[in-house]
Amino acid sequence: MTGTHETFIRKTIELAEQAMERSNEPFGALLVCDGEILLTAESTRFTEHDVTRHAELNLVSMASQELSPETLARSILYSSSEPCAMCAAAIYWAGIPTLVYGWSAEKVAEINGSTFCLPSREVFARGKRPTEVIGPILEDEALKTHQKHWNART
Amino acid sequence: MTGTHETFIRKTIELAEQAMERSNEPFGALLVCDGEILLTAESTRFTEHDVTRHAELNLVSMASQELSPETLARSILYSSSEPCAMCAAAIYWAGIPTLVYGWSAEKVAEINGSTFCLPSREVFARGKRPTEVIGPILEDEALKTHQKHWNART
Repeated sequence: MTGTHETFIRKTIELAEQAMERSNEPFGALLVCDGEILLTAESTRFTEHDVTRHAELNLVSMASQELSPETLARSILYSSSEPCAMCAAAIYWAGIPTLVYGWSAEKVAEINGSTFCLPSREVFARGKRPTEVIGPILEDEALKTHQKHWNART
Repeated sequence: MTGTHETFIRKTIELAEQAMERSNEPFGALLVCDGEILLTAESTRFTEHDVTRHAELNLVSMASQELSPETLARSILYSSSEPCAMCAAAIYWAGIPTLVYGWSAEKVAEINGSTFCLPSREVFARGKRPTEVIGPILEDEALKTHQKHWNART
């Protein structure tokens, strides 16, 4: 399964690169069910002038509108970075039982200087329904995209 | 200031009632700056078929699109119920420094059977920038609206 996880995490890194090319922050996410990508999303925070438009929140929003609860309950959400508390809680509300992420919340905060860090495992621990969390995966590859972005901003 | 808080919390309860009349869950929120209501929002979760469309997330989304960071940094967000972790983190990302809520996250979970409870003060504690939290306020009044809603569903 690790090989499969790596393939999908590489795809989220591509989505993060795409977000960056569109003047947004480098975050990408996608939803997989039965080995197939159903939906992809990227950060649209700057282009939509909306602080809630993180890649994972965009993905969960689309997923809950377009897919059945039964499909969501069999899906895996892949994210280039570990989701923030806003996005982790959204994943829980959508009933998605598995999260796989590229680089960790702590690394994100370290590199981009974020002043807010609540790791996703701690968020999911407050839910009675279990959410499996796998990561970090390919942290070094994900990191390159981020360094490119934040170095360019300083 | 307590009188003022009560006035605005009563208004969020009216918004929650309105949401309920529109077939959504009974949650309402509003943003105040210099004593004036700038924006109001309600839950649109069911009518938009989107699990992320909580009242507070709708409010933060609008607020960050329409208002300057300077105005957000002087505003107070009022919510009929204590925001969930998704909404609390969104409030943090928007740079809104003060939250006032009607009834507590624990009470919400108790009444509506939610399987997820992470109180907002614990979320804000992970941010380096302080967020002041005031509540519960008028919990009994807010509770009546909720009981009406959840009793009707069972």
